[in-house]
Amino acid sequence: MILKPIGIIHSLYKTKGDAPTQGRLQNNTFQIEVYQEYLPCLKDIETASHLIVFYWADKADRTIQQTNTPFDTKPHGVFATRSPNRPNPINFNVVDLISREGNILHVKGMDALDKSPLIDLKPYNSEIDSIPDSKLGWKDRLKTTRESQ
Amino acid sequence: MILKPIGIIHSLYKTKGDAPTQGRLQNNTFQIEVYQEYLPCLKDIETASHLIVFYWADKADRTIQQTNTPFDTKPHGVFATRSPNRPNPINFNVVDLISREGNILHVKGMDALDKSPLIDLKPYNSEIDSIPDSKLGWKDRLKTTRESQ
Repeated sequence: MILKPIGIIHSLYKTKGDAPTQGRLQNNTFQIEVYQEYLPCLKDIETASHLIVFYWADKADRTIQQTNTPFDTKPHGVFATRSPNRPNPINFNVVDLISREGNILHVKGMDALDKSPLIDLKPYNSEIDSIPDSKLGWKDRLKTTRESQ
Repeated sequence: MILKPIGIIHSLYKTKGDAPTQGRLQNNTFQIEVYQEYLPCLKDIETASHLIVFYWADKADRTIQQTNTPFDTKPHGVFATRSPNRPNPINFNVVDLISREGNILHVKGMDALDKSPLIDLKPYNSEIDSIPDSKLGWKDRLKTTRESQ
């Protein structure tokens, strides 16, 4: 299973320390450059309000199986976290598509580092992708504990 | 960028013709088998109500750039559709996690074919992943046209 880079992400986050925990909640804009050979794949993408952007976290450590998070002091399995460190470092962000200029998409809501390889783009579909009330017990318990203090 | 299979998906959909257009809307259950060597990565995953499952659509045609959909007769760029045919055939499904038994996760809401290679699991996070009112113009226009007839 070999991935081909289909483009590159231009981001103001240059190093790991620059990137926020949840880029979706920030207001910064990003340029997604799709390589010319994949231009036909973009037809009609400008009619989407939101995209799912898949990129390769090339700075990730693929050997890490459990990790600490900013939320507590206990380690959790990487599949129970959104850490970029995982066996296959595919990151994804749900983004607002602001505009398209040819092979450049201007978007909002990422946490990719600059020059991350782009691997896929899909249109967001609220009917199948939107779950407004999901739970993540290990994290929600912390929130509840903090709020009740 | 080389992906390692981290498990395998057991599905009642054996061939392309069996799989529904949007598995999220069906009631079938699936077994996600995570290989033993990745068991530590699952710690605390059972506290999640919903997961995002990434798998490799190994039957996909990676050379297709534009495709017809079940929704209209005009072709669209694959990045503006959810077709499994795309340069990097990474599919993803938002699923309900029903239960965990060791390295097996029982889930609902997929459209993977049987024996699809598993490549990643992440906990769904409503705060950053849920957009209840996204639009996809080329598809929404058809819906509006049909409803007004």
